[in-house]
Amino acid sequence: MNFDLGNSIAVLERTPRVVEALLSGIPDVWTTGNEGPDTWSPFDNVGHLIDCELTNWMPRVHVILSQSADRRFEAFDRLGHISRTKGHTLSELLAEFRQLREQSLSDLHGLNLTAAQLQRTGEHPAFGSVTLEQLLATWVAHDLGHIAQITRVMAKQYRDAVGPWVAYLPVLRR
Amino acid sequence: MNFDLGNSIAVLERTPRVVEALLSGIPDVWTTGNEGPDTWSPFDNVGHLIDCELTNWMPRVHVILSQSADRRFEAFDRLGHISRTKGHTLSELLAEFRQLREQSLSDLHGLNLTAAQLQRTGEHPAFGSVTLEQLLATWVAHDLGHIAQITRVMAKQYRDAVGPWVAYLPVLRR
Repeated sequence: MNFDLGNSIAVLERTPRVVEALLSGIPDVWTTGNEGPDTWSPFDNVGHLIDCELTNWMPRVHVILSQSADRRFEAFDRLGHISRTKGHTLSELLAEFRQLREQSLSDLHGLNLTAAQLQRTGEHPAFGSVTLEQLLATWVAHDLGHIAQITRVMAKQYRDAVGPWVAYLPVLRR
Repeated sequence: MNFDLGNSIAVLERTPRVVEALLSGIPDVWTTGNEGPDTWSPFDNVGHLIDCELTNWMPRVHVILSQSADRRFEAFDRLGHISRTKGHTLSELLAEFRQLREQSLSDLHGLNLTAAQLQRTGEHPAFGSVTLEQLLATWVAHDLGHIAQITRVMAKQYRDAVGPWVAYLPVLRR
């Protein structure tokens, strides 16, 4: 499927509602469990989504659209959420993510991006030249990937409880 | 994590809202795409969730709780949703799933299950003896697994559009 800005926004604007429908008010056992050492809980995933909103997506869009000859992205800190979320409740994080996503999409709408702008490029620290279109497609796939990760981590809390059915539940064996 | 009935219901009651937040009103390109031949689109996943509600979860709970000596489950038809969903819109399926889940949970609440009942067993066609607790834990993990599958299938529609970022998005390579 080719990139389409409207189709992309249709996913991006739904993510906060999806994450809230899944996690808001649910018992903590579901939101704090992870998949083992150095893996992320649903709480960590929400923190990471906030981190990306603050330091990755729209900041990189603006780097690409800048008139600067040097359009290198700052490296993204994959563990930035750990210090950022300390002392906060999941309920606070969900509200923050919703608000930040609204701001990001309002900012994106305001750019009225043209087809030519979508082909502009920036420099990714690892990949080199990437287009604005690729960045926006990645934003969409990244949202969906983290919803998949949150639900997988939750499912795994019942890995033993399902007994022999583990054989029919691939989500428990990833 | 040990099985807990309240924690399980907390997930089960959220699933219709999560699936609606994700899919309701979204452009069809996101709900009809799949992962290749003989794989399921998000539409198919919702159809399958309906099918399980009608022929799997609560019907099997009732088999386990029956006084019958023969408590074998009927085999579940993994492709039953294909004929059942033909000619229906996604919007219809989402409404049907929400309604069926409400009925299932109302039925489940009404049983006032005891700890002893959770250890009662039925006969699974492939696994043999399984407990009611394992069946209910499977219901939870199965819900979460299908939300993960829906979002993975959606993400994969942008597999090419993300360009080099595919290397950082494990959801696109499962």
